[in-house]
Amino acid sequence: MVLDHVGIAVKDLDESIKFFKDALGLELIRVEEVPEEKVRVAMIKAGDVRLELLEATAEDSAIAKYIEKRGEGIHHIALRVDNADEVTRKLKNQGVRLVYGKPKVVSKGSRKVNFIHPKSAHGILLEIVEVLRNE
Amino acid sequence: MVLDHVGIAVKDLDESIKFFKDALGLELIRVEEVPEEKVRVAMIKAGDVRLELLEATAEDSAIAKYIEKRGEGIHHIALRVDNADEVTRKLKNQGVRLVYGKPKVVSKGSRKVNFIHPKSAHGILLEIVEVLRNE
Repeated sequence: MVLDHVGIAVKDLDESIKFFKDALGLELIRVEEVPEEKVRVAMIKAGDVRLELLEATAEDSAIAKYIEKRGEGIHHIALRVDNADEVTRKLKNQGVRLVYGKPKVVSKGSRKVNFIHPKSAHGILLEIVEVLRNE
Repeated sequence: MVLDHVGIAVKDLDESIKFFKDALGLELIRVEEVPEEKVRVAMIKAGDVRLELLEATAEDSAIAKYIEKRGEGIHHIALRVDNADEVTRKLKNQGVRLVYGKPKVVSKGSRKVNFIHPKSAHGILLEIVEVLRNE
């Protein structure tokens, strides 16, 4: 189980890209829109791990609500696993609270994800991600 | 510049180690006390990156204050750089707000660090770390 990415909630994607790219010198991999999650995402390379800058595209997006409540900042971390279904089952059996009963396939079928609820993970929204297809 | 670690503020270090080790199956590298920062730290391996679980050892520790204000959760992310002095100089010249005027040597002389202020980094407390001696 390795760290896959760190999700960061930002108000203005273009401005935040500028900071990570120009001020810090990190590489922008790509920008994409994820309509299911009502976000626009910029992926920034930081070694083997990505920083995912997340900008809300609708007022009822989880990212918009997060920023309203807590301001910009680190939103979640994601651990890459071999089998999200198995990890979900195992964690449930241990009484860990998960957001979805079964992992959800997202990003045009490329990833299967679930989330451990912050109440079960020391305040961290902890994503579990199985890569189905490399992009 | 690569992601070095993710710092996580926790109330109870032993309980949080149990979660990452037993529930998630991640490897505990070591536990140490860092008196200069008034924390007890557990390092958890998550691929090439570490999760640093941080428990306050005094009421006036930055971690105690953070938890009081925001609760447990992700506290900072750290980027590893080759030369912390140079990065500090470069960022200052770009108007980026840093916590220390000059990087500080910490952890028994093993690392040289500085922090970009969350106001300059989209709400993220962003540590810049130069490894002086591998542990």
